Amino acid sequence: MNALPIGIFDSGVGGLTVYRALKRILPHENFLYLGDTARLPYGTKTPDTIIQYALQAARLLIDAGIKFLVIACNTATGPALPVLRKRYPDLPIIGVIEPGAVAALAISKTKHIAVIATEATVAAHSYQSAIYHLDRTAQVVEKAAGLLVPLTEEGFLSGEIPCKIIHHYLDDLLADPNTRPDTLILGCTHFPVLAEVIHEVVGDRIQIVDSSRVVSEAVHDYFGAHPDFVHSGAEEGFSEFWVTDGVGRFMRVAERFLGSEIHAEQVRLVDFFS
Amino acid sequence: MNALPIGIFDSGVGGLTVYRALKRILPHENFLYLGDTARLPYGTKTPDTIIQYALQAARLLIDAGIKFLVIACNTATGPALPVLRKRYPDLPIIGVIEPGAVAALAISKTKHIAVIATEATVAAHSYQSAIYHLDRTAQVVEKAAGLLVPLTEEGFLSGEIPCKIIHHYLDDLLADPNTRPDTLILGCTHFPVLAEVIHEVVGDRIQIVDSSRVVSEAVHDYFGAHPDFVHSGAEEGFSEFWVTDGVGRFMRVAERFLGSEIHAEQVRLVDFFS
Repeated sequence: MNALPIGIFDSGVGGLTVYRALKRILPHENFLYLGDTARLPYGTKTPDTIIQYALQAARLLIDAGIKFLVIACNTATGPALPVLRKRYPDLPIIGVIEPGAVAALAISKTKHIAVIATEATVAAHSYQSAIYHLDRTAQVVEKAAGLLVPLTEEGFLSGEIPCKIIHHYLDDLLADPNTRPDTLILGCTHFPVLAEVIHEVVGDRIQIVDSSRVVSEAVHDYFGAHPDFVHSGAEEGFSEFWVTDGVGRFMRVAERFLGSEIHAEQVRLVDFFS
Repeated sequence: MNALPIGIFDSGVGGLTVYRALKRILPHENFLYLGDTARLPYGTKTPDTIIQYALQAARLLIDAGIKFLVIACNTATGPALPVLRKRYPDLPIIGVIEPGAVAALAISKTKHIAVIATEATVAAHSYQSAIYHLDRTAQVVEKAAGLLVPLTEEGFLSGEIPCKIIHHYLDDLLADPNTRPDTLILGCTHFPVLAEVIHEVVGDRIQIVDSSRVVSEAVHDYFGAHPDFVHSGAEEGFSEFWVTDGVGRFMRVAERFLGSEIHAEQVRLVDFFS
């Protein structure tokens, strides 16, 4: 029995898809969500900068008291997960990439796997490394689809515009039946809110791996194996949302991502740079 | 005769359209450009955060030695220009909003003026205030067109996708002939690279005010009135580009904005927050 919250960290709103999946699968747990909206997005930034931002965010959550940390951002997971695990060896920390890689290999028959992600995640080859580490024979194609991030934040979730942009990113990948993947990883936590349009574009022959959902299942499995981490009880857990800038915008976009209203508070991160 | 560079500050690459216009009109001047790419974009952030970022950026340029400061970012100009002018009363500082307002009123016949800009610029009503200050009878409609910023950075500069997105933002504005503006201000320094597609969408009946070009003309006028500021001579001036993150990405996107290659260097800003 452990009432401490699960900490969730993201650059902004994308991680809310992870929160939503976690809340559904672990309804009695408490959650503390931190979105670094003062510096979002991370997807166009460099590994060194992303590591600094992630260290600052993790420290705030850890100082507040959490029992488990979820890095709900693919871009941050790549460079920052090993650094955070080294700095906080006693805290269980999970990122979004490894569970996505495991899930994709489990459902892919041809082992031809495609990944759409931010520019930074693709440049770091985070999914390619994670998949090759598990299966050297897999074929992995990574594609930066940067415009999908602002597309979701600006509310273009269905219709012609997202459809055309997704076609723009995926048509080449799907054109050749010999190299066509049978599995597509949504390698950015913003993308699940576009899952329906993406499904329309890729059709039924391609399985979609939602990295937000699979990470929530990985956390659920961990809690199943570690009963001392569980916060059981009849009552629903509480959720707090902290952001580093723009409470109003965060709450507005969050409603679109979660389908219900939330309340958020502004916090300040300490910048190690200076 | 003054060989000190003109300092140009922007959140990232958008200000390069201002640099390009300045370089064309003042070819003998030296330029020092700072893009705060570690925290871009500013367009979704709050005034307080934008002021802090702008103060840090301005200090770096001023410490390096500049004779004139151009805030080449509409989002930063609104909240930060008055703060910067107060803090540095001896340095001439110009932003992008007032010259755009003056130019729009000069060419508009109906005084129905529309502005497309970032969410933050629209929320601050920066253009509306600047235009009303000059002419209380003008009708100003401001429209947030946030997706156009990443659209330009991701290289969607022509064709169906930007065209459809621009229609999405402007069609309502253009639908009613009674309220239709005769002048459209591109109130974000990213937007001039989309000027051709925007022109295709709005047609010849609407005049487009490029805030990047008009600010360069305002600087040119200032230098004309202050000969001691001018760096004359036969040789072309030098330009330096500093960024706070992602030199490679900046140089790649810059080539698209400028039509030629540049070299950039990484710098660090001091964060006053901590």
